[in-house]
Amino acid sequence: MPQNKQIHLDNRPTTEAAASNFKLVVAQTPPLSAGQVLVRHHYLSLDPYMRGRMNDGKSYAMPQALGQTMGGGTVGEVLESQSDKFAVGDKVVGMGGWQEYSVVDASQTGMMRKVDTTHVPLSAYLGAVGMPGVTAWYGLVKLCNPKAGETMVVSAASGAVGSAFGALAKARGCRAVGIAGGPDKCKYAVDELGFDACIDYKLHDNAVSLSKALKQACPNGIDGYFENVGGMVLDAVLPRMNAFGRIAVCGMIAGYDGAPLPLANPSLILIQRLKVEGFIVSEHMEVWPQALTELGTLVATGKLKARESVAQGIEAAPEAFLGLLKGKNFGKQLVKLV
Amino acid sequence: MPQNKQIHLDNRPTTEAAASNFKLVVAQTPPLSAGQVLVRHHYLSLDPYMRGRMNDGKSYAMPQALGQTMGGGTVGEVLESQSDKFAVGDKVVGMGGWQEYSVVDASQTGMMRKVDTTHVPLSAYLGAVGMPGVTAWYGLVKLCNPKAGETMVVSAASGAVGSAFGALAKARGCRAVGIAGGPDKCKYAVDELGFDACIDYKLHDNAVSLSKALKQACPNGIDGYFENVGGMVLDAVLPRMNAFGRIAVCGMIAGYDGAPLPLANPSLILIQRLKVEGFIVSEHMEVWPQALTELGTLVATGKLKARESVAQGIEAAPEAFLGLLKGKNFGKQLVKLV
Repeated sequence: MPQNKQIHLDNRPTTEAAASNFKLVVAQTPPLSAGQVLVRHHYLSLDPYMRGRMNDGKSYAMPQALGQTMGGGTVGEVLESQSDKFAVGDKVVGMGGWQEYSVVDASQTGMMRKVDTTHVPLSAYLGAVGMPGVTAWYGLVKLCNPKAGETMVVSAASGAVGSAFGALAKARGCRAVGIAGGPDKCKYAVDELGFDACIDYKLHDNAVSLSKALKQACPNGIDGYFENVGGMVLDAVLPRMNAFGRIAVCGMIAGYDGAPLPLANPSLILIQRLKVEGFIVSEHMEVWPQALTELGTLVATGKLKARESVAQGIEAAPEAFLGLLKGKNFGKQLVKLV
Repeated sequence: MPQNKQIHLDNRPTTEAAASNFKLVVAQTPPLSAGQVLVRHHYLSLDPYMRGRMNDGKSYAMPQALGQTMGGGTVGEVLESQSDKFAVGDKVVGMGGWQEYSVVDASQTGMMRKVDTTHVPLSAYLGAVGMPGVTAWYGLVKLCNPKAGETMVVSAASGAVGSAFGALAKARGCRAVGIAGGPDKCKYAVDELGFDACIDYKLHDNAVSLSKALKQACPNGIDGYFENVGGMVLDAVLPRMNAFGRIAVCGMIAGYDGAPLPLANPSLILIQRLKVEGFIVSEHMEVWPQALTELGTLVATGKLKARESVAQGIEAAPEAFLGLLKGKNFGKQLVKLV
């Protein structure tokens, strides 16, 4: 049985998350029982929701247990199988966590699924054709309810969710406008991802200034907004929303460390008769097949060219994750484990 | 033609609205043209939305024009008619404004409608069986989507909208919990309106304290919330919302004067996957017939005993309106004009 390096949550952050919250542990992979499969992880997915799970407070996800391997999405290859559902060499996506190997009980449905890497690279099943892609799909299609000609805006536009949101909005005949941090990310959003415009929020030190830039980029106002960020960005978007606009609230990464960030003027929800809805994609499994089909086609046909930031080796996971929380990644943040 | 006392908007408030914003003007009612009707107003309705119209800024309603009679709902009696749609003596509800008489072009549909006062008092058509009642109906039925056994909460519970909300929620088998200002209003909400509990927000000087009281009054959490107030009350309600809760945003009276009041922790929208939706009832005319039928039956059968605060004479309208903005009214605020 191979040696298995794992990252555990050692203690909880009180303000900002830090490398000292994590601990590297070396374990042995246990021998397989009937129905079990040993998977070697090729990539680990790092996602903002993990920050919420590091806290013990009320949140939608169960808190990450202390002294246990951090949870997280993984893609990999079956090394050994005691299950008739998976064969050695199968490529699979699952929730293997922050470690090099996992033993999965394949008899439980939904723990792991086989994927086809003929037209879609394995790592994309953690991004554009995985949870982040479906997240974008659900927020756009089910909550922002886009009509051709409308303007759809997304924050963290160059990230895994934002990239997919842009491609999906363009496919529906919408004007797609992104918000991202820095000129490189904005240029990439327009040149590679097909956004009609992208605003660099780092050029603005307050919501009023950012809101003016949004007015220019969205001459017909904003009909749908996908929120990954919160804070100043949300304050800047709200006054630009058209009557009966829709806001999908997927993340508020700006407030994940420390005190909650307020919303400056909630009365705009009334004045513009907005619909603001929070969601987490794992509660809407019924849309996954439809969403993954569309996303897989966009990737296979080159219409969604999602970028990846790849850290090397499980030891690099904590720093890569802390960087993600600060927007240091560029596109989907992965850790390569082979 | 009778002399007609009117209240005009003379100038706009810069912070708090004041009596000096209004001006009493005495006009003559003009002679009728073909299709017109002269109505003597019995009651004028005073409503929080009028405060928004006094400003010139962006809002859902057109600003009230300066130097013109303040707009507003009225009930009254047809004194003279040049229309075959209305006869002398007909009781009518319309938008006659802050004045004693109005001349209405009866050929335009929707300007005025005849009402039956056999089982429902005339003034109720400005409250429980009028715009405030339909507002409560729309917010509860269409946005809060109540199921039997769920907990529905409303702020300004003893007001015209809150009263109707409570009766409509009880009729659907819900636990109805009110928030109101002062022991008299809270006692009335429970004893007369049928709320299961009512919290006096004046006993709490911060959202944390009010939120604790809500936890006691709503042991199973809050599934639907109807917002009339905003500010501290909304901050107190949000942490008590159950997963997938619905919030209907109808008013934010606490922020109508001066600077907008922030929402302390918008990330709860995500954490609890809430749906927050602003609305104005005049954009949903399709529900009025159904809503008015239910509300009329509740009033006629004594299940909705809506209280009224009645000021006397058009000269009293400005002070009564300013009192309404401060919560000095008790139930539906009217001005009696005959």
